[in-house]
Amino acid sequence: MPKYEDSKEFNPLDPEEFREKAHKVVDFIADYYKNIENYPVLSQVQPGYLKNRLPNEPPDTQESFDTILRDVHDLIIPGITHWLSPNFFAFFPATVSTAAFVGEMLCTCFNVVGFNWLSSPAATELEMVVMDWLATMLCLPESFMFSGSGGGVLQSTTSESILCTLVSARDRSVDEIGKLVVYGSDQTHSMFKKVCKLAGIHPQNIRSLPTTIDDDFSLSPRLLRKVIEADVAQGLVPLYLCVTMGTTSTTAIDPIKHLADVAIDYGIWVHVDAAYAGSACICPEYRHFLDGIELVDSLSLSPHKWLLAYLDCCCLWVKNRDLIRNALSTNPEYLRNKISESDSVVSYKDWQLGTGRRFKSLRLWLILRSYGVTNIQNHIRTDIQMAVAFERLVQSDSRFEIMVPRQFSLVCFRLKPFDGFDSAELLNKALLERVNSTGQVYMTHTVVGGLYILRFAVGATLTKECHVVAAWEFITKTTDALIKECGRSSTKSDCLSNT
Amino acid sequence: MPKYEDSKEFNPLDPEEFREKAHKVVDFIADYYKNIENYPVLSQVQPGYLKNRLPNEPPDTQESFDTILRDVHDLIIPGITHWLSPNFFAFFPATVSTAAFVGEMLCTCFNVVGFNWLSSPAATELEMVVMDWLATMLCLPESFMFSGSGGGVLQSTTSESILCTLVSARDRSVDEIGKLVVYGSDQTHSMFKKVCKLAGIHPQNIRSLPTTIDDDFSLSPRLLRKVIEADVAQGLVPLYLCVTMGTTSTTAIDPIKHLADVAIDYGIWVHVDAAYAGSACICPEYRHFLDGIELVDSLSLSPHKWLLAYLDCCCLWVKNRDLIRNALSTNPEYLRNKISESDSVVSYKDWQLGTGRRFKSLRLWLILRSYGVTNIQNHIRTDIQMAVAFERLVQSDSRFEIMVPRQFSLVCFRLKPFDGFDSAELLNKALLERVNSTGQVYMTHTVVGGLYILRFAVGATLTKECHVVAAWEFITKTTDALIKECGRSSTKSDCLSNT
Repeated sequence: MPKYEDSKEFNPLDPEEFREKAHKVVDFIADYYKNIENYPVLSQVQPGYLKNRLPNEPPDTQESFDTILRDVHDLIIPGITHWLSPNFFAFFPATVSTAAFVGEMLCTCFNVVGFNWLSSPAATELEMVVMDWLATMLCLPESFMFSGSGGGVLQSTTSESILCTLVSARDRSVDEIGKLVVYGSDQTHSMFKKVCKLAGIHPQNIRSLPTTIDDDFSLSPRLLRKVIEADVAQGLVPLYLCVTMGTTSTTAIDPIKHLADVAIDYGIWVHVDAAYAGSACICPEYRHFLDGIELVDSLSLSPHKWLLAYLDCCCLWVKNRDLIRNALSTNPEYLRNKISESDSVVSYKDWQLGTGRRFKSLRLWLILRSYGVTNIQNHIRTDIQMAVAFERLVQSDSRFEIMVPRQFSLVCFRLKPFDGFDSAELLNKALLERVNSTGQVYMTHTVVGGLYILRFAVGATLTKECHVVAAWEFITKTTDALIKECGRSSTKSDCLSNT
Repeated sequence: MPKYEDSKEFNPLDPEEFREKAHKVVDFIADYYKNIENYPVLSQVQPGYLKNRLPNEPPDTQESFDTILRDVHDLIIPGITHWLSPNFFAFFPATVSTAAFVGEMLCTCFNVVGFNWLSSPAATELEMVVMDWLATMLCLPESFMFSGSGGGVLQSTTSESILCTLVSARDRSVDEIGKLVVYGSDQTHSMFKKVCKLAGIHPQNIRSLPTTIDDDFSLSPRLLRKVIEADVAQGLVPLYLCVTMGTTSTTAIDPIKHLADVAIDYGIWVHVDAAYAGSACICPEYRHFLDGIELVDSLSLSPHKWLLAYLDCCCLWVKNRDLIRNALSTNPEYLRNKISESDSVVSYKDWQLGTGRRFKSLRLWLILRSYGVTNIQNHIRTDIQMAVAFERLVQSDSRFEIMVPRQFSLVCFRLKPFDGFDSAELLNKALLERVNSTGQVYMTHTVVGGLYILRFAVGATLTKECHVVAAWEFITKTTDALIKECGRSSTKSDCLSNT
């Protein structure tokens, strides 16, 4: 077929071309990791920086690989906020590892579309094994494992995990959708409200219960019962409670057991969102934060946050796999096959939103085997140790104060109002902007209970204690300058608003 | 800090260790691609094959990288159904390329959590550029571009695209959720019903309009109008129509313009699901299948199917970006920053389900630049040419028949009932099982209009015409054997059911 062979000259997966280019990119990435401290952590570009430097249309013909890689270096890297920089202390860090990277390469390599068992038995079976392994590491009860009534599944995000479990709860309910009520605290992740609305819960029926600084922003079981009772008295139907173990703002810990005790009285589905802090529970000394987990219906935890996994990877365990399957299964003819029909295997498409899915468990399998549980526990402990060190530094400077007790590797603090500055918010906003604008350190803020608080989240994979110490020195030096300038300016608020 | 340095000996992202291991895996993968034809396409393992070969718990201490890679080879590869094999003709192929692979490596490398502009300006801006580039390639009207009122966003799956647009439509409606009605055909992807249920649409209000073989299984505008009118007469409120350009079973084409003309009369949101076939519209000779696209509200297309992109990558364009933002935006304090508040930039978290998101546009950028539009158009044409070749082979054998006109690179055919075999279904089932059980070729089936049909989907990236020809030879040889054996068996149905 000579005519045909000609037109097939374009071979986008020639193994030797693949080998050559992928090797080149490995070196590009290794060099990036090696030199990452040379870049400003927070990108310094202005909106629209890229559009003007790229053509309006894609090229008709191919460009050389070297040109493209050079553009990645010259055009893309300046627009990157370097989440992997050791000087990244913003949000929660997204942790990574060589093992996860090569696991991801293998996942990409096979490119299986693992909707059911037959589409690649290894993808389904390895995911089941790895989810059980992680359940063991977290000492989850057997009911969350495949040997029990439940099991685990990898989702992309916590939002997806909440959507899938919320809909499972909704679909087992016999009440009309307009009557269903869901519960969280004012510290529950913002996506909770969004996901509830997506699932058709009436916005007026989404309860966001207030927390206070006196309770360290954790959800009060007593308040929960009161609100539920008021709802029931109004003829509404309590459906779902999202308990957070380690909130996004301050890593507040909702008391799982006491909240579940309340929820059980009303037949409410209890989900525990432990996206960030759940990972700490692989260390025996932190496991008690999951006490009561045997009482809940589902748990999610994102290894891309603290288990070295790269994005995107959220573990969801459910106690009753029939409920999620009832809510999410589809059975189109073109996916039918004897083995799946025999019910002897799991069809993960029935545990998630979409149909297609990647072979993500390879990443977790590589992490657990490449490092072993002991190293991973120590990685958690080391991050927390560094946060403790930062906390002590803050405490050693009387101009600052710790705002919320530190639980894990996040320190919540602020510069105290001083010398006639009554707005702690303006002051800390100014400090934060000065710190971040240099690109030397990146940290973020939150507002809880009306208080503007600086967040210093330790745990980027490359961070060592020297980075934490240097960051603190930089923060205090910036504070010195800020105070000095404010002393000089005609009015103090001028100096703050100008920053 | 000597004490600390000790405990930090565990460095999961040491650049030189990264370099060494990633290079090793590049060679592993290049070799896999080189030898992929040596593996059975369809995995030959039995359910539970992996569980018994792995320990019940993760290791306490680290294992050697060579051991792990050996296990990938010995334990994982046998459980892979090789989607990238040139002998894979099942479902729709998932296409790949070196450019996308290295784009994915770079995406993983930076590991940015691109929820808003500031979290990595390059991630937001490159996605906007690339989505506009693809819109240009598809000759979409400007209303779907950022220069117009709309814009594009990368989602993981079509399901997510439909969920986001359905909820946008739902939330602009003022009617109660129980009254809202959605429309698709009986050929619309099975996830449509699932997504509608997720969004709280009452299952009784999900219309699945019948199609017939006489209309090549495309949705009839006349029928649509009739059903809508009946719904309106009953006091229901038509909300959303999913038009499919290239259905999963047979690549049937719903007439976009004529359906949109009907929908517009009732204020219905029209979404076009062009997951597979949309990619063909980058070739001028196929662009007419998108005629009328200017009338619809949203369009989705999955480059992981036919644009060489690897999983998971679904492009969604909307005509009115305010509507998706209204439905999906969140504004938690800890993500607030001056630039996003100024509304001068896009916050992609407000265009999707979850909060976190990966830098997926790198993959598409690498594809478009590494190959150029012309090569990518030719890749589409080449796949279709190969399907045409297969179609001719089928037509040349009078024992077979083409069941639905071929539109793109999928051929729907069957072995005709013969010689007293009145069940074409049993016969073709037997043939399919025999073909697939050998691992030499993998194809799948569907049932439409009560007909059991074999699907031969050409387009795996490594497939050349010689593979198509060999597959056909194998199918006919298997047919010969099947017929011969059936002739020998005491009853013909025995011989079929034993296969």
